[in-house]
Amino acid sequence: MKKVGILGGGQLGRMLLQAAANYPVETFVLEKDAECPAAHLCHHFSKGDITSFEDVYNFGKDLDSITIEIESVNVDALKKLEAEGVKVYPRPEALEIIKNKIEQKNFYKENEIPTSPFIVTSKKEQLQNHLNYLPAAHKLAHGGYDGRGVQILKNEKDFDKAFNEEAVLEKLVSIKKEISIIVAISEDGKTALYPPVEMIFNQDLNLLEYQLCPANISEKTLWKAEAIALTVAKNLKSPGIFAVELFIDIDDNVLVNETAPRVHNSGHHTIEAAYSSQFDMLWRIMLGYPLGYTKPIMSSSMVNLIGEEGYKGPAKYQNLEEVLQIENVFVHIYGKKETRPGRKMGHVTVLSNERQELIHVANKVKHLLKVVS
Amino acid sequence: MKKVGILGGGQLGRMLLQAAANYPVETFVLEKDAECPAAHLCHHFSKGDITSFEDVYNFGKDLDSITIEIESVNVDALKKLEAEGVKVYPRPEALEIIKNKIEQKNFYKENEIPTSPFIVTSKKEQLQNHLNYLPAAHKLAHGGYDGRGVQILKNEKDFDKAFNEEAVLEKLVSIKKEISIIVAISEDGKTALYPPVEMIFNQDLNLLEYQLCPANISEKTLWKAEAIALTVAKNLKSPGIFAVELFIDIDDNVLVNETAPRVHNSGHHTIEAAYSSQFDMLWRIMLGYPLGYTKPIMSSSMVNLIGEEGYKGPAKYQNLEEVLQIENVFVHIYGKKETRPGRKMGHVTVLSNERQELIHVANKVKHLLKVVS
Repeated sequence: MKKVGILGGGQLGRMLLQAAANYPVETFVLEKDAECPAAHLCHHFSKGDITSFEDVYNFGKDLDSITIEIESVNVDALKKLEAEGVKVYPRPEALEIIKNKIEQKNFYKENEIPTSPFIVTSKKEQLQNHLNYLPAAHKLAHGGYDGRGVQILKNEKDFDKAFNEEAVLEKLVSIKKEISIIVAISEDGKTALYPPVEMIFNQDLNLLEYQLCPANISEKTLWKAEAIALTVAKNLKSPGIFAVELFIDIDDNVLVNETAPRVHNSGHHTIEAAYSSQFDMLWRIMLGYPLGYTKPIMSSSMVNLIGEEGYKGPAKYQNLEEVLQIENVFVHIYGKKETRPGRKMGHVTVLSNERQELIHVANKVKHLLKVVS
Repeated sequence: MKKVGILGGGQLGRMLLQAAANYPVETFVLEKDAECPAAHLCHHFSKGDITSFEDVYNFGKDLDSITIEIESVNVDALKKLEAEGVKVYPRPEALEIIKNKIEQKNFYKENEIPTSPFIVTSKKEQLQNHLNYLPAAHKLAHGGYDGRGVQILKNEKDFDKAFNEEAVLEKLVSIKKEISIIVAISEDGKTALYPPVEMIFNQDLNLLEYQLCPANISEKTLWKAEAIALTVAKNLKSPGIFAVELFIDIDDNVLVNETAPRVHNSGHHTIEAAYSSQFDMLWRIMLGYPLGYTKPIMSSSMVNLIGEEGYKGPAKYQNLEEVLQIENVFVHIYGKKETRPGRKMGHVTVLSNERQELIHVANKVKHLLKVVS
């Protein structure tokens, strides 16, 4: 049996390991928290720091393959491991491009991939010379994650929120829709695309309410989006799973927002809604099996279960029973002991071929199920 | 989080633990083989003998709930655990009825549940007085499993194969079809039935080829079968999952063959083909959640992957890649290191709403995928 390691032991690792149990594979996890969601589902758990060269190298050196569930890992160790013959998904060079917001934007530019106009800044003062970019998103080059390291600068008054270190200033796009496409690339360069997912936001709070798959977009927009997603993934020159997040602007232009070189929140619905889930697909790639079938079994919606504001402590799931009573929902609780505001604690997928039902049930779940303490 | 233990660490435990990772639950497994399919997927693995009073009692005494993946466990320990407040699925009294083939047959008789005529024997000589039961199946009262402990006695010449200890002599039924119905019963007595599964046998070898769901039976037969399955499960007076195996004879009578008080091979297709799988359903029951939805997402067939005759040693999966190339199949390899003739090594589920395609793909998988060494 091949030995495959995962850097990080959160919910993505957990769902990867649920899928791994369908294949002959020996699994390893490196993570500093021994009570993390994935710790008990692997063959061998190692306590350690995924940002440490030594920890990552020692963890990986006897493995056949290694993958990540988060970008903030030690890339130098992955490079050394790759040089010594360990297969790394995604390749360290691809990861390096994605990890640094400046390199990521330059990568889009160099490969003629449409993305919002941007400039690079390293000091607040520089912003004064680029007022024509406002309103803009100011994004730290290093270490941003899940909305951290991003500031929206509407006008000069917001400049005190700006970053005084390496960052990207991106012109804000007039967004009509946000979608995401998951792309799978095998070792021998074969590709498979999942149907795009559409993000539905709360207009007032500007927070993600739920996602819908497939996205409600025109055929022409679909073609553009698929071509762009494929171009992004192919130019990263690495096997693996890539989530390409895209904006559709008010003129129906399709622009890349950002790319994750790994299994992704926007692909969770594939567990039940596709023949081969994104997790299954990554194992197929890493174990050298043929790519899976990305066709939807049914249309779906997906609601993230986020730690409620104002609660910190041992997690409780309010109205979980009511939600489990709905016939066509699939509940995934990640088993994190502690909740805190904004923490991803689980998700719920809804299957139906009636779009109105997908929306209705997603809203119902969103308003019923709360993570408190 | 509730603490729930599983006696036995085979493939049923493995699939239970894959499903457990959707819920907040702390999992425990007791099994003598530390490399068994379920060992690495629980929070706490205990090496021990599930037939030993001491091992089972010590394993269970600090748990909230305990279940089984095989009947051959120490029932006395389960009784003591239940008396001390541990919830046991199925209840030890139900397990005791099922474990003993004589008690199981008497249970059907007492509850007026149709089953083939039988008598109890304890010595070979007794068979001479019951020639009118031939052809018959002679089944050991204790310890039979997966075809072991069963002898077919066609005529007096076969009597040397008969058992010289407590056994049941069952008149053979002229079988038109064999089906199985999985019944779920919650703590508060609510029930849910999965659609019946039909077993398709190789006529020449009398071996199970594959199963189909839903079974191709008349509405009238379906009603009879469902009523019988429900009567069996309800009279066992226990929450849990029950697989009721039924014969449909040439006169369209429906007779119980036998019952398993646990998740069962005939319910594996529910992982992909039902909204709530049999494994998900058992967690819902044990964690006190509402019963899940048993409606099929799609029709399905399922092929068991059995160790090929003539091979014993480290398992290899011939033509696995070819099978993984088929769009609508779901492969489950149980991760057993060693294969041996007849050993259950995995299964493959096929989804389609075209019955001919289910049959075609099942046959294709059956003839392609071989477990050798």
